[in-house]
Amino acid sequence: LRTGFPEVIWGQDKTPEQITKIMTAMRDRTHVVMATRVTPGKAECIQQILPEVQYNDRARICAIVNQAKMPQRLGTIGILSAGTADLPVAEEAALTAELCGFQVERLWDVGVAGIQRLLSNRHVIDNADVLIVAAGMEGALPSVVGGLADCPIIAVPTSIGYGASFNGITPLLGMLNSCAAGLGVVNIDNGFGAAILAGQILRTASKLSNQPL
Amino acid sequence: LRTGFPEVIWGQDKTPEQITKIMTAMRDRTHVVMATRVTPGKAECIQQILPEVQYNDRARICAIVNQAKMPQRLGTIGILSAGTADLPVAEEAALTAELCGFQVERLWDVGVAGIQRLLSNRHVIDNADVLIVAAGMEGALPSVVGGLADCPIIAVPTSIGYGASFNGITPLLGMLNSCAAGLGVVNIDNGFGAAILAGQILRTASKLSNQPL
Amino acid sequence: LRTGFPEVIWGQDKTPEQITKIMTAMRDRTHVVMATRVTPGKAECIQQILPEVQYNDRARICAIVNQAKMPQRLGTIGILSAGTADLPVAEEAALTAELCGFQVERLWDVGVAGIQRLLSNRHVIDNADVLIVAAGMEGALPSVVGGLADCPIIAVPTSIGYGASFNGITPLLGMLNSCAAGLGVVNIDNGFGAAILAGQILRTASKLSNQPL
Amino acid sequence: LRTGFPEVIWGQDKTPEQITKIMTAMRDRTHVVMATRVTPGKAECIQQILPEVQYNDRARICAIVNQAKMPQRLGTIGILSAGTADLPVAEEAALTAELCGFQVERLWDVGVAGIQRLLSNRHVIDNADVLIVAAGMEGALPSVVGGLADCPIIAVPTSIGYGASFNGITPLLGMLNSCAAGLGVVNIDNGFGAAILAGQILRTASKLSNQPL
Amino acid sequence: LRTGFPEVIWGQDKTPEQITKIMTAMRDRTHVVMATRVTPGKAECIQQILPEVQYNDRARICAIVNQAKMPQRLGTIGILSAGTADLPVAEEAALTAELCGFQVERLWDVGVAGIQRLLSNRHVIDNADVLIVAAGMEGALPSVVGGLADCPIIAVPTSIGYGASFNGITPLLGMLNSCAAGLGVVNIDNGFGAAILAGQILRTASKLSNQPL
Amino acid sequence: LRTGFPEVIWGQDKTPEQITKIMTAMRDRTHVVMATRVTPGKAECIQQILPEVQYNDRARICAIVNQAKMPQRLGTIGILSAGTADLPVAEEAALTAELCGFQVERLWDVGVAGIQRLLSNRHVIDNADVLIVAAGMEGALPSVVGGLADCPIIAVPTSIGYGASFNGITPLLGMLNSCAAGLGVVNIDNGFGAAILAGQILRTASKLSNQPL
Amino acid sequence: LRTGFPEVIWGQDKTPEQITKIMTAMRDRTHVVMATRVTPGKAECIQQILPEVQYNDRARICAIVNQAKMPQRLGTIGILSAGTADLPVAEEAALTAELCGFQVERLWDVGVAGIQRLLSNRHVIDNADVLIVAAGMEGALPSVVGGLADCPIIAVPTSIGYGASFNGITPLLGMLNSCAAGLGVVNIDNGFGAAILAGQILRTASKLSNQPL
Amino acid sequence: LRTGFPEVIWGQDKTPEQITKIMTAMRDRTHVVMATRVTPGKAECIQQILPEVQYNDRARICAIVNQAKMPQRLGTIGILSAGTADLPVAEEAALTAELCGFQVERLWDVGVAGIQRLLSNRHVIDNADVLIVAAGMEGALPSVVGGLADCPIIAVPTSIGYGASFNGITPLLGMLNSCAAGLGVVNIDNGFGAAILAGQILRTASKLSNQPL
Ligand SMILES: Nc1ncnc2c1ncn2[C@@H]1O[C@H](COP(=O)(O)O)[C@@H](O)[C@H]1O
Ligand SMILES: Nc1ncnc2c1ncn2[C@@H]1O[C@H](COP(=O)(O)O)[C@@H](O)[C@H]1O
Ligand SMILES: Nc1ncnc2c1ncn2[C@@H]1O[C@H](COP(=O)(O)O)[C@@H](O)[C@H]1O
Ligand SMILES: Nc1ncnc2c1ncn2[C@@H]1O[C@H](COP(=O)(O)O)[C@@H](O)[C@H]1O
Ligand SMILES: [Mg+2]
Ligand SMILES: [Mg+2]
Ligand SMILES: [Mg+2]
Ligand SMILES: [Mg+2]
Ligand SMILES: [Mg+2]
Ligand SMILES: [Mg+2]
Ligand SMILES: [Mg+2]
Ligand SMILES: [Mg+2]
Repeated sequence: LRTGFPEVIWGQDKTPEQITKIMTAMRDRTHVVMATRVTPGKAECIQQILPEVQYNDRARICAIVNQAKMPQRLGTIGILSAGTADLPVAEEAALTAELCGFQVERLWDVGVAGIQRLLSNRHVIDNADVLIVAAGMEGALPSVVGGLADCPIIAVPTSIGYGASFNGITPLLGMLNSCAAGLGVVNIDNGFGAAILAGQILRTASKLSNQPL
Repeated sequence: LRTGFPEVIWGQDKTPEQITKIMTAMRDRTHVVMATRVTPGKAECIQQILPEVQYNDRARICAIVNQAKMPQRLGTIGILSAGTADLPVAEEAALTAELCGFQVERLWDVGVAGIQRLLSNRHVIDNADVLIVAAGMEGALPSVVGGLADCPIIAVPTSIGYGASFNGITPLLGMLNSCAAGLGVVNIDNGFGAAILAGQILRTASKLSNQPL
Repeated sequence: LRTGFPEVIWGQDKTPEQITKIMTAMRDRTHVVMATRVTPGKAECIQQILPEVQYNDRARICAIVNQAKMPQRLGTIGILSAGTADLPVAEEAALTAELCGFQVERLWDVGVAGIQRLLSNRHVIDNADVLIVAAGMEGALPSVVGGLADCPIIAVPTSIGYGASFNGITPLLGMLNSCAAGLGVVNIDNGFGAAILAGQILRTASKLSNQPL
Repeated sequence: LRTGFPEVIWGQDKTPEQITKIMTAMRDRTHVVMATRVTPGKAECIQQILPEVQYNDRARICAIVNQAKMPQRLGTIGILSAGTADLPVAEEAALTAELCGFQVERLWDVGVAGIQRLLSNRHVIDNADVLIVAAGMEGALPSVVGGLADCPIIAVPTSIGYGASFNGITPLLGMLNSCAAGLGVVNIDNGFGAAILAGQILRTASKLSNQPL
Repeated sequence: LRTGFPEVIWGQDKTPEQITKIMTAMRDRTHVVMATRVTPGKAECIQQILPEVQYNDRARICAIVNQAKMPQRLGTIGILSAGTADLPVAEEAALTAELCGFQVERLWDVGVAGIQRLLSNRHVIDNADVLIVAAGMEGALPSVVGGLADCPIIAVPTSIGYGASFNGITPLLGMLNSCAAGLGVVNIDNGFGAAILAGQILRTASKLSNQPL
Repeated sequence: LRTGFPEVIWGQDKTPEQITKIMTAMRDRTHVVMATRVTPGKAECIQQILPEVQYNDRARICAIVNQAKMPQRLGTIGILSAGTADLPVAEEAALTAELCGFQVERLWDVGVAGIQRLLSNRHVIDNADVLIVAAGMEGALPSVVGGLADCPIIAVPTSIGYGASFNGITPLLGMLNSCAAGLGVVNIDNGFGAAILAGQILRTASKLSNQPL
Repeated sequence: LRTGFPEVIWGQDKTPEQITKIMTAMRDRTHVVMATRVTPGKAECIQQILPEVQYNDRARICAIVNQAKMPQRLGTIGILSAGTADLPVAEEAALTAELCGFQVERLWDVGVAGIQRLLSNRHVIDNADVLIVAAGMEGALPSVVGGLADCPIIAVPTSIGYGASFNGITPLLGMLNSCAAGLGVVNIDNGFGAAILAGQILRTASKLSNQPL
Repeated sequence: LRTGFPEVIWGQDKTPEQITKIMTAMRDRTHVVMATRVTPGKAECIQQILPEVQYNDRARICAIVNQAKMPQRLGTIGILSAGTADLPVAEEAALTAELCGFQVERLWDVGVAGIQRLLSNRHVIDNADVLIVAAGMEGALPSVVGGLADCPIIAVPTSIGYGASFNGITPLLGMLNSCAAGLGVVNIDNGFGAAILAGQILRTASKLSNQPL
C-alpha cells in the first residue's frame, strides 16, 4: 500500500489461521497491522493465538498497534452516516482513518429525511478537512452535504436496503449522478477504501504545505 | 379516464391529423380535451386546423378548454422540481392539474445540493394538500421533501442526466428506496400520471368530507 | 414519522434485544409502537421480555398498542392481493393501516387470471376511499383495478415468483408502466410504506374537509 | 421455413433492390412470397419494379400472392391487441396468418384498464382455436385472456411505452411470469413468429385429426 | 386451471401440512391432484398423512391419481433435454403431461455440442405432435430442433449453468432470439407451464378434428 | 500491434483527413496499413487523396498493401457465419486475416436452424487450423461447430437481431456459456480482434514447429 | 458552486441564446464564467453575440476569463488519458482545472496495453499532487497508476468503446473495483466533476498548510 | 471432449456416488479421468471408494491418472493470476493443462496495482507459447499482459471481489473490452475451459508443424 499507512489484510475470504500468520509476519515491518471484514468468531480465534490483537466488532477490524511508532497526522476527517444500519461501513472508514493517524469526527444517523438533524450538526461538516459520507437506500446524503461543505467529499454507497436497492446499486448510481459537483465515489460498502483516499488527500496537503507557491 | 377529468390523448406517436380528428370528436363530450407530448411543429399544424386549440410549449400540451364548464375543485397541488431541465415534466404535471380544475403552486430549481433555497421556500410545502416532486440525476429531492411535509407526496423521476443516470433509471430507483416512508412513485417523465394521481387524491378528499366519521 | 402515526421500527436487521430496548423507550411517547419484519423466533424473545407485545405472524409485526389513546380516523382502505403468497406483504399493509386507526377491507386471491372472482367482489373496490393492491409475478392486478376504481390506487410489487420475475423487478416494472393512469408505486414488498401513503391521503382528506372551497 | 408456409424475407436490413431480387427468385417456388418490416418508402420502390407486389402499410408487409394456389386451412386464429399503438405488431401477425391460409378474427384496443370492453367481446376468445395477444407497457392482457380462454395462447410483447417499459422488456417479463399457466411467449415485436407458431399449431391439429386414438 | 386438466398446487412455498390439506380438499373434484416443486423431505411428510400420494423425486411432483377416471388423450408430446442437469425441469414437464393423459416420448442428453446424438434420434422429433425442449447454459437446442421438426415447439430455459448464465437468463434470451421461427418460450425452469401449453395445443387439435373445413 | 502484423487504425471515430494522415505516416514502416469501420463515403474521400488505397465495402476496410513485402504464413483460418446480416463482421475478420498473410476459407449462411447445410459443408471445418465463427440472434453456431471441430474456435457475437437480442448481448452470453468446452470469445462485432487472435495462434504454431519436444 | 471556483453552465441541453444570457448575467460576479458540452456550432453563435468568449473545441468549453482577477493556486494536477478518443473528456478536466487557477500537466495515450510508454513518463505521475485518470473500454489505467503514484487519484470512465463497453458502464465498474485502494470515481465522461474534486483537494491543502499540527 | 484430452466430469451438481460411478465407468477408456469443482468433503467420500483417486484441494479437482499412457505434448502454457483469491480458478486451469500433458509455468499475485512484480517476472510471459490470465475485481491484468506478450492470450474473469464486481461481471466486461487486440475470453471462473482452449491451440501447432508451407 501507500507508504506510511498501515499494512492491511482483506479478512473476508481468509481463515483465522491465515490471518494470524500474515499478521505475525507483518507486525515488525510497521506501526499498524490490521485485518478488515473479520467476524466476531474469527476474531476470537485470532485473539487466542495473538492476545495483543485488538478487535472492534462494529468496524469488523482486528489490529496490532505499536502505539510508540504511531504517527500523528495533520487534518480532520469528518465521517457521516445516513442510518444506523450503515454503521459497520462508516466505522470501517473511521477506524481505518484513526489507525492511519488522523483525527476523526463522527456524525451518525443524519439521513436526509430528517434534514434538521443534519443542519443542527453543521459544525462537523465545517470542521472537517475531508468528509466521508456513507448512505444506503437512495444514497442522497452526499448530495445534500455537497451543498453545505467546502472540502473534498468521498461518498460510500452501502448495501443497506431491500427490494429495488439491489444491494447497493441504487445508492451507488445516485452518488455517481449527484447534482453536487466534485464527489468521489468508491465501491459499495468500501469504508476502507474511502479512508485510504481521505488519508492520501490529507498527506498530500501536508507535503504541499512545505512547497512554495 | 376517471370521471370528471379531462379527456386525454397521448400525442407522441400520433400525426397532427390524428390528434385533430380525436380532439374534434371528443370536444363536445367534456369541458377539456388535451393532448400531451406534442412538439411545437405538430402544435402549429393542429392550430391551423383548430384555431381554438391552446398550446403550452413548456408542458408540450395542446388543449381545447370550455371555460364555462370548467369545475373548481378543492385543494392545492404543490409542484417542485430539482433542476431547470426537469421543467418540461414538472410543467406537464402542473398544467394537467390546472386543466383538472385544481389550484397549483409551483416551486422550481430547489435541488438538494442547495438545501437553503428549499428551506427558505417551505411555505409552498406547508400550503400544499398534495405534493408532486420531479427530479432527475440522483433523484434525491422527494426524500428531503418527505421529511419536511405532512401530506401525500408523488415522486416523478425524470430522464435528465447523463452517463450512469441511465435515462431516468437512477432517480427512479432512488425514489423507490426513499428513506422517507410513504412516497408514491410514477414512471420516468410521467408528469401527466402524477397529476392524475394527485387529482384523484383530492377528489377523494372532497367526497370524504361529506361523510360522517 | 408523520405526526399522529405509530412509531415504527424496521425489525429486519435488529436483534430482539435492540427491538425491545427501542420499544420500551418509545412506548410512552405514542399510542402505538410497532416493529415490522419480525420473524416468529424474534417475536417470542421480545414477548418474553415485554409480555404486552402483540405479534401477528402473517404481517410479521410486533406492536404495543395503547387502545385508550387509539384514534379513529375517517376513511376506508381497501387492500387487494393477487395470490396467497402475496399475503405477508398485503397483511403488513393491512395491519399497519389498522394500527394507524383506519378501517380496512381485505380482498385476497383475486389474481387477473381469474377475473370473475375480482368482478364478483367489486363492492370492495367501490367502498374504498383508497386502494392498496399487492401482486407478484407479472403484477397485472393494479392495472385491472385501475380501470374499475374511482379512487387513488397504491400498487405494491411483491417478490413472489421465480425465474424471470427477478425477486419483484418484473411486477415493479409492470406497475410503473400501467396503462391505467394515476397509480402510485412503492418499493418491492413495501406493504408498510403503502399503508403510510394511504393513511397520509386519508388524513389530508380530513384536513381538507374543514377548508372552504 | 416450415413446409407449406410462405417464403419470408426479413426486410429491415435489406435495400429495395435486394428484396426485389429475392422475391423474383422465390416467386415461382411457392404460393406466397412475403417481406416483413418494409417501410412505405421501400415498398414504393419495390412496387415500381414489381407492380404485382401488394403492400399493407399497417403490417409493413409486401407480398406476391398466387391466389390460385392459396391453401385454405382448418382453424381460426383470434388476434387481440391492448392499445392502438400495438397495431403494427398485431397486424403483422394477422396478415402473416392470413397469407398462411388461416381464418383470422381481430379484436383491437382491449387493454386491461378497460376490462368491460374485453368482456363484452368474449365471443372472439370463445371462437378462436388459437389466440395471439399483443400488448406493450405492462403487458397484462395475455394473463387476463389466459383466464378466459380454453385454447393455446401466444403472447407477443411490443416495444410500445416509455421510461421504464425499456422498449418491450417490461411486457416481455410480465408475459413470461404470467399467473395464467401455459402461455407461449415470443420475442419483442415478433408478430410474424407468433403467426408461424399459431399456424404450426393448427397444421398439427389437421394432421392429428386423421390419426386414430 | 383449464377444464379437464389436473388440479395443481405450487408446492415450493407451502408446508407439507398446507399441501396435504389442499390435496385432500381437491381430490374428489378431479381425476388428478398434483403438487409441484416438492422436496423429498416434504414428500415423506405428505405420504405419512396421505399414503396414497405417489412421489416422483426427479420431477419433484406429488400426485393422487384416480386411474379409473384418467382420460386418454390424442397426440404424442416429445420432450428433449440438452444435459443431465436439465432433467428435473424436463421430468416436471414429462410427468405433468402424462398426468394430463398424453403419450410422452423422452429424449435426454442431446445437447448441441454433440449433434450426432440428436440426429441419430430424429425419430423422436418426427413422431411427436408437439415438442418440449429444455436447455440451460446457452440454450441452443430449441433452435437446432426448430430446423428439424415440423410441429409446434415449446422452449424451456433452465437455470443450469454458472457465471454468465445468470441462473437461466442466458438460455431464456437465446430462445427468444432463436433464428428458427415459431418457438413459444416459457419462464425459466417452468416445465409445468410447458406441459400445460403442449396439452392445450393437443386438446385444441382434438376439438378441431371434429370440425369440418 | 503484435510484430509482423499490419498496422491498424480504428476508423470509426476519425475523419477521412485523420485516417489519410495516419496511413501516410505509417505506410513506409510496414507491408500493410489498414483502417477498419470505414463507411463508403469516408472511403471515397480517402481514395481521392490516396488513390492506392483499396476499399472493401463489405468488410468496411481501407488498406494500402505492399504486395512485394507481403508474408505468406502457415495455416488456414476457416470463417463461418450464421446469417447474411453477420457478413460485415465475418468479412472484417476474413479480410484482416488475409492482410496478415493467412489462407482463409469462408462458409457463409450456415445458421443452426438449417443444420444440414452446415453438415454438408463439414470439409471447411475439417480443413481449418483455426475457426472463427460469427453469429447474432441466439449465437448458437459456435456450440454446434465446437462439437464437430478438432481445432481452436474463436466465437464472435454480432449485434444482429432485434428486441431481446439487445444489440449482441444475447449471442455474447450464449457463446460464453457454450456447452462446447474451449471456445474463446471476443467483443460484440469484433471481427478484427478475432482475426488477430487467430493469426497469433497460427504464428505461435509456426514458432513451435521449430522447437524439439 | 464551491467558493472561489468558476461559475459553470451545463451547455448540453441549452440553446446558444440561453447560454449567452446566463454568461452575460454572471460575468461581473466572478473571474471566470464557463459553459461545458458546447458544440462548435453553438460556440460560433455564442461568439457572434459575445466576441470575448473563448472556445476550446477539444474540451468543448466556452469561457469568459478576467485574467486580472485570475487566482494562482498551489499544486499541480496531472491528467492522464488512455487513448486518443478519451481526449474530449480529459481536456474538459484539464481546461476546467486551469480555469480554476491550477497548474496542469497532461499525459495522453498511455493505455495499459503499452505499459512502457506509461513507465517512461513516470515523472508526470511523480510531479503531480493530484492525478486525474481518464480511460474508456476496460478502464484499467487508474489501477496501474494507483500502484505507481503516492497522491490522491480521481478516475473518470469515458463512454469510448463499442459492444460490451456499454457506453462507459464497463470502465465505470472496473474503476469502482480497482485493486488499487483509494481511488475516487466520478460519473461517466464527467471530466468537469473530476477537475472540481481535484481543485477542492488542493484548496484544502492550502488551507491546511496554515494550520499547526 | 476433443480427442486425446482427459475425460472430464462437472462435479458441482453431482453426489460423490454419481462421480465415483462415472469415474469407474470411464477409467479404462482413457489415460486420465478427472472431476472439477469437487469440495474437500466430497473428495474424501470419493477416495474412500476409489483410493487411487488423487485430490488437489486448491484446484478442487479429483483425478485418476494412468501415468504410463500419459502423453507428453509440445509447448508451454504460462498461467498468471492477479490476486491470491484467484488461485482456485488459476489452479483449475493449471492442473487441467498438466493432466492434458502440457508443461505449465505458474506466476501468481501479479495484479496490475503492483506492476513492478509483473515486469520483473517477464520471463514467464516470454517463455510461454500460450498464456492464461486469471483476474477478478477490475480484471485489468490481461490487457497489460497483452501489451507485453507475443503469443495467444486466454483471459479468465473470476468471481472474486464484492459490491460492484457483481460476481465476475465486471472483470468479464473489462476483458471483452480490452484495448489489447486479440484476447479470447471464457466464462467467469472457467479455468477448465481456458486450459482446454490453450491445449487445443498447442495441439494444432503440433499438427501444423508437420505441414509444409
Ligand atoms: N475492507 C477492504 N475493502 C477493500 N479492500 C481491502 C479491504 N481490506 C483490505 N483490502 C485490500 O486488500 C489488500 C490485501 O489483500 P490480500 O493480499 O488478499 O489480503 C490490501 O492491500 C487492500 O488493498
Ligand atoms: N403524458 C402522458 N403520460 C402517460 N400517459 C399518458 C400521457 N398522455 C396520455 N396518457 C394516457 O394515454 C391515454 C390515451 O392514449 P391514446 O388513446 O393512445 O391517445 C390516456 O387515457 C392516458 O391514460
Ligand atoms: N411448477 C410450476 N411452475 C409454474 N407454475 C406452477 C407450477 N406448479 C403450479 N403452478 C401454478 O400455480 C397454481 C397454483 O398455485 P397455488 O394456488 O399457489 O398452489 C397452479 O394453478 C399453476 O398455474
Ligand atoms: N475493428 C476493430 N475492432 C476492434 N479493435 C480495433 C479495430 N480496428 C482497430 N482496432 C484497434 O484499434 C487500435 C488503433 O486505434 P487508434 O489508434 O484509435 O486508431 C489498433 O491497434 C487495434 O488494436
Ligand atoms: Mg440514504
Ligand atoms: Mg435530483
Ligand atoms: Mg400478479
Ligand atoms: Mg398492456
Ligand atoms: Mg444448452
Ligand atoms: Mg445465430
Ligand atoms: Mg482503458
Ligand atoms: Mg484484477
